Amino acid sequence: MDINCDLGESFGNWRLGADEALLPRISTASVACGFHGGDPRTMRETVEEAIRHDVAVGAHPGLPDLLGFGRRVMDVSPADLHAYITYQVGALKAFLALHGRELNHIKPHGALYPMLNARDDLAEATIRAMCELMAEPVLYWPAGSEDRALLRAARSAGVEVVGEFYPDSRYGANGETVLERHREPVDPDAAEAALRRFLADATIDTVEGTVIELSARSICIHGDGPTAVAIVDRVRSVLDELGYGLQPATKAEVVGA
Amino acid sequence: MDINCDLGESFGNWRLGADEALLPRISTASVACGFHGGDPRTMRETVEEAIRHDVAVGAHPGLPDLLGFGRRVMDVSPADLHAYITYQVGALKAFLALHGRELNHIKPHGALYPMLNARDDLAEATIRAMCELMAEPVLYWPAGSEDRALLRAARSAGVEVVGEFYPDSRYGANGETVLERHREPVDPDAAEAALRRFLADATIDTVEGTVIELSARSICIHGDGPTAVAIVDRVRSVLDELGYGLQPATKAEVVGA
Amino acid sequence: MDINCDLGESFGNWRLGADEALLPRISTASVACGFHGGDPRTMRETVEEAIRHDVAVGAHPGLPDLLGFGRRVMDVSPADLHAYITYQVGALKAFLALHGRELNHIKPHGALYPMLNARDDLAEATIRAMCELMAEPVLYWPAGSEDRALLRAARSAGVEVVGEFYPDSRYGANGETVLERHREPVDPDAAEAALRRFLADATIDTVEGTVIELSARSICIHGDGPTAVAIVDRVRSVLDELGYGLQPATKAEVVGA
Amino acid sequence: MDINCDLGESFGNWRLGADEALLPRISTASVACGFHGGDPRTMRETVEEAIRHDVAVGAHPGLPDLLGFGRRVMDVSPADLHAYITYQVGALKAFLALHGRELNHIKPHGALYPMLNARDDLAEATIRAMCELMAEPVLYWPAGSEDRALLRAARSAGVEVVGEFYPDSRYGANGETVLERHREPVDPDAAEAALRRFLADATIDTVEGTVIELSARSICIHGDGPTAVAIVDRVRSVLDELGYGLQPATKAEVVGA
Repeated sequence: MDINCDLGESFGNWRLGADEALLPRISTASVACGFHGGDPRTMRETVEEAIRHDVAVGAHPGLPDLLGFGRRVMDVSPADLHAYITYQVGALKAFLALHGRELNHIKPHGALYPMLNARDDLAEATIRAMCELMAEPVLYWPAGSEDRALLRAARSAGVEVVGEFYPDSRYGANGETVLERHREPVDPDAAEAALRRFLADATIDTVEGTVIELSARSICIHGDGPTAVAIVDRVRSVLDELGYGLQPATKAEVVGA
Repeated sequence: MDINCDLGESFGNWRLGADEALLPRISTASVACGFHGGDPRTMRETVEEAIRHDVAVGAHPGLPDLLGFGRRVMDVSPADLHAYITYQVGALKAFLALHGRELNHIKPHGALYPMLNARDDLAEATIRAMCELMAEPVLYWPAGSEDRALLRAARSAGVEVVGEFYPDSRYGANGETVLERHREPVDPDAAEAALRRFLADATIDTVEGTVIELSARSICIHGDGPTAVAIVDRVRSVLDELGYGLQPATKAEVVGA
Repeated sequence: MDINCDLGESFGNWRLGADEALLPRISTASVACGFHGGDPRTMRETVEEAIRHDVAVGAHPGLPDLLGFGRRVMDVSPADLHAYITYQVGALKAFLALHGRELNHIKPHGALYPMLNARDDLAEATIRAMCELMAEPVLYWPAGSEDRALLRAARSAGVEVVGEFYPDSRYGANGETVLERHREPVDPDAAEAALRRFLADATIDTVEGTVIELSARSICIHGDGPTAVAIVDRVRSVLDELGYGLQPATKAEVVGA
Repeated sequence: MDINCDLGESFGNWRLGADEALLPRISTASVACGFHGGDPRTMRETVEEAIRHDVAVGAHPGLPDLLGFGRRVMDVSPADLHAYITYQVGALKAFLALHGRELNHIKPHGALYPMLNARDDLAEATIRAMCELMAEPVLYWPAGSEDRALLRAARSAGVEVVGEFYPDSRYGANGETVLERHREPVDPDAAEAALRRFLADATIDTVEGTVIELSARSICIHGDGPTAVAIVDRVRSVLDELGYGLQPATKAEVVGA
């Protein structure tokens, strides 16, 4: 099983996320690229540390809204979004190339999640950029309904999709995680229970009280949550107990497939 | 002979420079990368237009000072500068890769000029980034004294240097062009006279009234000057009259060598 | 009659708008405050020039989207918007205070136009900020339907509203001007015809071909349009011909009232 | 005695400083104004909380270098700096005016400290802005030699200067605190010892091993230091033990005078 975190979201003098503690515990990182968070030096250092811990590195591009941490929907055009993603991912690739490494995947950030689920034109611009940026493009994206714009565009273009399960998030009835601008502490017990449920029968509870199925190849923990390290440790314990190894998503077995 | 301009320095809604008029007239462009000017969409469009006009594209990275157009000296550390250059050039390379093209050269912008002439630590960080970013690194830099930090670092690392002559700038006795935050219109007659002088005997007049020698392989015209197009046309006429062809610097004969 | 322009929208090294030519020709200016355009030095100089030409100065606050010139809808919260407006207008007031002047009015910019027409919570946050920032708050806003959120909030709070007529814009059937990210040149003849029509019977033609009534106390010309000066000259000629004087909106007679 | 902290230096999603814990413990705050740190919403909330705790509020304007937290010397012109200070302080005054409060003082931030100690033109631009922004201008500034540009300009203009003693900083032989980009934890015992020494005989130890005299009316604790709250508590204990009350600097007795 794969565990991924969004990392490298510090900016200048401001620290965010327990990157040092998380990198030794996970298999994949999605690294911020300077628009919603991250900056050139943070990117270089995050990539260096990830490689040192044998963690696969993907890009986590965001909207050009540093003040809103990329979590506010903005009416950007498809042409703008294509350029924003190309710029950010190109920058991250340069830091990977310092170590002779290639990009593992791309995972859009924050408000791009609802935007890319809803709008075909933005989704197509994103997938086009991904196909230009990666020889074998891989998208990390929250698992849920296949009937979302980004997943439709990915399928059309032959982009590999790694579905993610979020034990530290609340889910709506439509299978989408609830976007929160300021992240509250998550109870590790609740996260563990959600994970066990997911691993047992590939289902999750929604905030509306219903139960839905979810097919995912990676477990995502928000790196900026105050209890992120505790939750990752809990996830690791459960995976060990149940006999799962930690490995990149492309080799991992699919829960719920 | 090579003619190069700094292009792609528009930002968002603000236009700067006569890029459309200049690209059909020149052989090489140094494209802004979003820190002092330029933005992702401008970069994509500038690269597209440059390739359409068979113009070689280099990167023109700057300081993170959009408000000051990268023309104010800032006390950045070598580690920061290395990361800023890697980030910006990596982003530009992604736009070139959309067209299967490689980067032609790197040319630092604005206040990096005096900073990189003076400080060995910053010069070495820059050259190290260049060697990581380009298999065969090429530096465009104003011709003048060899005794400048960036040129020393380039020589040590085996980086190819293309010296530039600026017919639209005033020169100091030390062979350095005078940095001006807001560019005044340049008289095309004065530029033509400087160019003829340079082509005839590889010398220039300084603001102090002295005459110095200059060895250069490229003629640089500031793309944001109000008379840039007129000056490029004048340069082209003189080159035609004297029998010079227009070609990339790496193939051009060296004036004053 | 009052003529107003949005001015001070240059940023750093980038010029925008024919401010020098416009200030001697108009009676009121709405000055950008650094978020969508403008910067501290541009603000100081624009205020100085406006006062020198006896032009009343209002604030033109925008969204925190320099790259998009504040013309892209962003999902900011009412609490954020209140703070953004307070910050920007407070900064402009400090430049007015250097000359012992007070703020004439507030006029939100760009994408705030559709946002504040549509959303009551954002409209109320804006009007609350205005009442805190001005002892006798005055809102400049495009004339049209009274049934818009910002006008409802202004009426509830007793804020004076100066309706604007835009001879250089196209109107929709709902009386709203069409937002354009990059402004095309406007034909001065068309603008003159629209103005004469408006002054004659307080009506305008819409892009749908219908005719609607419009009640306005100020004529607004976009300062960043390429034909802005020509249009202002035409407007001045028509006003002279018809016997209107140029004076602040608060004293001007209301066309269509 | 007065205790002051630099507060409100969070930005968007990034937290910095123990503002909630510090405000109940101090008498004066210098609030960041959005250039080096802080943002409009953080400013509004910091001002609200300060007033709730009866803490006097001053402005803490910085260089336009968010990425460098205003701690990198930049070659800004006097005219630019005047405009930057006016803009930032004007914005903060608007948040104070929401509560009917006036600005207590101005204290330039970060790299402005060495710049304003060294350069008369920048110092004069700053003091001119202060005199325009405050009817009775008060400058907070680290105590030390009177022979610094900003203090000379302040004396010439009749600006009141409140000298600060920094128990959590290291001092050089010239009486200047050492600027550190990333703040290390400070040992509260060391800070307490420095404070007792200062209160006893108005002297401090320097990193060079010498002892110098210092005259100060306010004790400044860096609000972003990891042990800031512990140090403030220690300072409060010492002041209580020695019979000092906590009150604004303008009323406090001067140690070392």
